[in-house]
Amino acid sequence: LIKAWEPTLEQYPVIGIDDEEFASVKKLITKQEVRAVTLAKLQLQDDLVMWDIGAGSGSVSIEASNLMPNGRIFALEKNPQYLTFIRDNLKKFAARNVLLVEAYAPEGLEELPDPDRVFIGGSGGMLEEIIEAVDKRLKPEGAIVLNAVTLDTLTKAVEFLEDHGYTVEVSCINVAKTRGLTEYKMFESLNPVYVISARKGEE
Amino acid sequence: LIKAWEPTLEQYPVIGIDDEEFASVKKLITKQEVRAVTLAKLQLQDDLVMWDIGAGSGSVSIEASNLMPNGRIFALEKNPQYLTFIRDNLKKFAARNVLLVEAYAPEGLEELPDPDRVFIGGSGGMLEEIIEAVDKRLKPEGAIVLNAVTLDTLTKAVEFLEDHGYTVEVSCINVAKTRGLTEYKMFESLNPVYVISARKGEE
Amino acid sequence: LIKAWEPTLEQYPVIGIDDEEFASVKKLITKQEVRAVTLAKLQLQDDLVMWDIGAGSGSVSIEASNLMPNGRIFALEKNPQYLTFIRDNLKKFAARNVLLVEAYAPEGLEELPDPDRVFIGGSGGMLEEIIEAVDKRLKPEGAIVLNAVTLDTLTKAVEFLEDHGYTVEVSCINVAKTRGLTEYKMFESLNPVYVISARKGEE
Amino acid sequence: LIKAWEPTLEQYPVIGIDDEEFASVKKLITKQEVRAVTLAKLQLQDDLVMWDIGAGSGSVSIEASNLMPNGRIFALEKNPQYLTFIRDNLKKFAARNVLLVEAYAPEGLEELPDPDRVFIGGSGGMLEEIIEAVDKRLKPEGAIVLNAVTLDTLTKAVEFLEDHGYTVEVSCINVAKTRGLTEYKMFESLNPVYVISARKGEE
Repeated sequence: LIKAWEPTLEQYPVIGIDDEEFASVKKLITKQEVRAVTLAKLQLQDDLVMWDIGAGSGSVSIEASNLMPNGRIFALEKNPQYLTFIRDNLKKFAARNVLLVEAYAPEGLEELPDPDRVFIGGSGGMLEEIIEAVDKRLKPEGAIVLNAVTLDTLTKAVEFLEDHGYTVEVSCINVAKTRGLTEYKMFESLNPVYVISARKGEE
Repeated sequence: LIKAWEPTLEQYPVIGIDDEEFASVKKLITKQEVRAVTLAKLQLQDDLVMWDIGAGSGSVSIEASNLMPNGRIFALEKNPQYLTFIRDNLKKFAARNVLLVEAYAPEGLEELPDPDRVFIGGSGGMLEEIIEAVDKRLKPEGAIVLNAVTLDTLTKAVEFLEDHGYTVEVSCINVAKTRGLTEYKMFESLNPVYVISARKGEE
Repeated sequence: LIKAWEPTLEQYPVIGIDDEEFASVKKLITKQEVRAVTLAKLQLQDDLVMWDIGAGSGSVSIEASNLMPNGRIFALEKNPQYLTFIRDNLKKFAARNVLLVEAYAPEGLEELPDPDRVFIGGSGGMLEEIIEAVDKRLKPEGAIVLNAVTLDTLTKAVEFLEDHGYTVEVSCINVAKTRGLTEYKMFESLNPVYVISARKGEE
Repeated sequence: LIKAWEPTLEQYPVIGIDDEEFASVKKLITKQEVRAVTLAKLQLQDDLVMWDIGAGSGSVSIEASNLMPNGRIFALEKNPQYLTFIRDNLKKFAARNVLLVEAYAPEGLEELPDPDRVFIGGSGGMLEEIIEAVDKRLKPEGAIVLNAVTLDTLTKAVEFLEDHGYTVEVSCINVAKTRGLTEYKMFESLNPVYVISARKGEE
């Protein structure tokens, strides 16, 4: 009798998975602390539809799927290196309700069901087009969360979202952390991330 | 036919509940963004036992209960004003697997089952005694998370935890956020919180 | 014999004067730490001409005058309350080479000598007009420093300055400090300030 | 007639000299923004005696000398690589009132005149001994400023200084800055520095 390998989530937390556990490159991944704030801002409830645009290594989709076991998450990515990462990660963390969509947004959005929540982690220079496309499909009272690391993206995203009638808040997250095993506990800073939360009005 | 009121969670997110939704006072509550990071650091998995020491308004326990529907959470608090808050909040958010324990830790811990996770949000001047008591009961590979806002607590907590053999990391979280409806989007800072994560070794 | 009052600087530092020493209101003053960074970014050398637009309590002009005993500093302000503050402060700190100009910029700039350095601490809703006016008069290789506390000002200032051909850098300064005499040393955050530094090209 | 080379300060600012202008290595130098805050906290007045312990590249001594043309600054350093840096920098910036003392503190302090101000940029594992030695010599109402980048140094320095009767404040400085010539202006964080300011009582 040969026993098949069974993926199991028992060793991983619902949220707060260590960055090192994800197949990724350091620059790409949404760091553990910022990921937690991002998920909080997404205001997830079970049974929602979420789009993850520019999914990168898939870390946000994977933890979102833990928060919404009955939700449906569509992760859009087309960079070949990142696709390898995200496939490995979806398998490792058994994220069964995340569907990988190989496309650069705004392409690939037409066939998806209307979202309640949209996370934009990367826009590949198409920020305005993506916000336009998302706005047409986002359900009333839906939410868009966008993580900006440049002044350019911060500025444009807030402007576009307000121009489309969204109520926008920005939280700048600065994290400095000690490494676990060093004797002197030197604080090392992550680069700041501007988590932009935009809420659509009622219909 | 009179229909009884049924509490429902549908309108609230799993994590990221707005601070204003909790019965509390501003100074007391663990803010939304810091709460999210705290929950990430707690490395919660469904089916665990968690102690929330100095539970305050209960916001961490309530979101933890959303992350662990099969977990058991024991929230210790004795301040009479806070007890009113926490009772109201447990009811409002239908946190059925949170048990309120009216005691100032380290009192009240004896009767509780051994914890996998401990969050120390407040220590009422008994930090060392609490860490001592928690250490005796925490399961192997269990985790303690402690939020410090003073240099005094930061220093003592790290020292005590390392003296007891824990692997300790500190993440300083600085959040600055705009208010949603102001025209100019002035950034306002929250005070920094040092989220201390300590992991117990294997048996 | 009646002895005349003699102002003396001996008890005050060159830079780093305590915020409480200035006649001001808390919200108005450029805080000690941010003032120091602002002065560093202004790249002052003795013998320069500096304009301080929206001088507020005059704290930046006063410390700049200590750094440039042979410089000439023109402090523009028109808010009546602030004028009282700035007059008191110029007298208290014996800032003899600071000239108070009662005007709301861009008014009042015509009669002044061309500046080497311009600090814009407040723009009273006239940011674009002020940058236009300053740009016409700023000497080649001159520098503009602007402190923004809102996303709106940050965005507009960087955009306008780059549109006028300046090389722009932004430094976001977050300061958290303990109060001196509290036992537990709680860290309290100042709101972040974006110090924008713009350098004009050679002629 | 051959004209001798004359060092000139005209091209450099009084404070705020670009980090790249100093002979140094990146990790060593007190960054421009933190240097400015450090100098503000030192509360310099012309004519004072300052010790710069663990002077590194000498950047703090050099800007302090610009603030105190009649002061006397003693820069202690013994690391051979750093000595090369500091000598080059003292020459380049014509810091005539900075005396380089080749010693690891607390050695080398006996022969120096009593200080009004002491900056401790590095302690080489001798923090307690240095504070002891400084305390014996610091004039009444004198000030010690110490920059800590590790939790270990932060904790020990505050404890030792308070044990010796000093009034201590801590300012944590977080700086995130854009690089000047990148199109998207990505914010990059410096690691946080804890600037500890300790004031001695009157005699």
